[in-house]
Amino acid sequence: MGKIYVVGMGPGREEGMTLEARKALSVSEVLIGYTVYIDLLREQYPEKTLLTTGMKQEVERCRLCLEQAESGKTVSLICSGDAGVYGMASLMLEVAEKAPGIEIEIVAGVTAALSGSALLGAPVGHDFCVISLSDLLTPREVIEQRLRAAAAGDFVMVIYNPRSRSRADHLRRACEILLETLPGSRPCGLARNIGRDGEARELCTLEELKDKDADMFTTVFIGNSMTKEVNGRLVTPRGYRRDE
Amino acid sequence: MGKIYVVGMGPGREEGMTLEARKALSVSEVLIGYTVYIDLLREQYPEKTLLTTGMKQEVERCRLCLEQAESGKTVSLICSGDAGVYGMASLMLEVAEKAPGIEIEIVAGVTAALSGSALLGAPVGHDFCVISLSDLLTPREVIEQRLRAAAAGDFVMVIYNPRSRSRADHLRRACEILLETLPGSRPCGLARNIGRDGEARELCTLEELKDKDADMFTTVFIGNSMTKEVNGRLVTPRGYRRDE
Repeated sequence: MGKIYVVGMGPGREEGMTLEARKALSVSEVLIGYTVYIDLLREQYPEKTLLTTGMKQEVERCRLCLEQAESGKTVSLICSGDAGVYGMASLMLEVAEKAPGIEIEIVAGVTAALSGSALLGAPVGHDFCVISLSDLLTPREVIEQRLRAAAAGDFVMVIYNPRSRSRADHLRRACEILLETLPGSRPCGLARNIGRDGEARELCTLEELKDKDADMFTTVFIGNSMTKEVNGRLVTPRGYRRDE
Repeated sequence: MGKIYVVGMGPGREEGMTLEARKALSVSEVLIGYTVYIDLLREQYPEKTLLTTGMKQEVERCRLCLEQAESGKTVSLICSGDAGVYGMASLMLEVAEKAPGIEIEIVAGVTAALSGSALLGAPVGHDFCVISLSDLLTPREVIEQRLRAAAAGDFVMVIYNPRSRSRADHLRRACEILLETLPGSRPCGLARNIGRDGEARELCTLEELKDKDADMFTTVFIGNSMTKEVNGRLVTPRGYRRDE
């Protein structure tokens, strides 16, 4: 029986990968992922079998991993960012539920909440929430409930998928909900194209954020009541571990 | 003028570091951190200057970085996990506020919410919150407000610092608050000594979690209404990105 690694690749650049992720790729005979990522790996790993499935073919992609592992191969399933956070780890474990003999190892990676925070400064310096605005797999009421709860809890918020292919107003609507209870002056930030060409950070207020253009490669940060600007960076203080 | 890297080292083992983190260490002349981490690096980097400050000397540690950078050195300030999440990035940026000429680069790392999730399976597969139970720097009412808000928002919760040096009942108290609204059967997990000797995962219910012994090297995961056990792993489904 083979083995499946579900590998978080970190932000765009290879430097963002962990040594563990690179090791998983190097011991794998088969690399499987969404077309764009696999194309990037083709040059680097000419000796490996590279298999792709298109967008929204996530279940198919997991089944492909399972087939390859059942035939004895060591397989890496590639995810951008972390393997878990909106990644393929949960789906892979579900698809493999009926094949408990296949070993599955999840290899964590740096998700955009962390890489984007580093780019902006340290907005995620203390308690925080990660919320996706995508309503493809989550009912919109659940998303809105989470935004309200996060505001009530004075959490720093990290917003993934601020716009979808079909709808541009997810971020505007989220800001409107937050502005019901949070001040318009609340410091916010956008991290664009993290680890890729065009990497950029932008600071603004919650009121200004409403009208920002945030595409699918943008991660949005909304400060809590303590968040402030320090020399052009977004900083949430008091965030070091008691036990460090 | 020198430069300061604030470097997230990931979980315990070197494999958990990113290539970028390793590069920052290798270009630095001075490595600064909490004694335990610096001791681990001494063997690996015999040619570098290694400076330490003890526990709760975080401001002092940042000042030391600034002094070294002002004398023209390239410095890495070492953090376990991520540089931002309960790390030193925010404090370093604050301490350096009056020295805007010093370049500060934050290097993200894999925080325990991600490495612990990978160890347990994929509890952090969708929207989640990270909450520290340490009341050293956060008023207890704020922590309790955040726990209630996270429950109201049906967030997966990742709990850092489930016990402090002086008090063992932080986790019990947190569970009691959550059990006001969440079912006792809610799937939970503990990730112990992630990336270190004694690494272990344990699944339990929220009711059982109340009586678990979670030390300072344990990260606790509390599922949302969708979280379930799959072949001994903790899985929160529906967590893949729309744009992947």
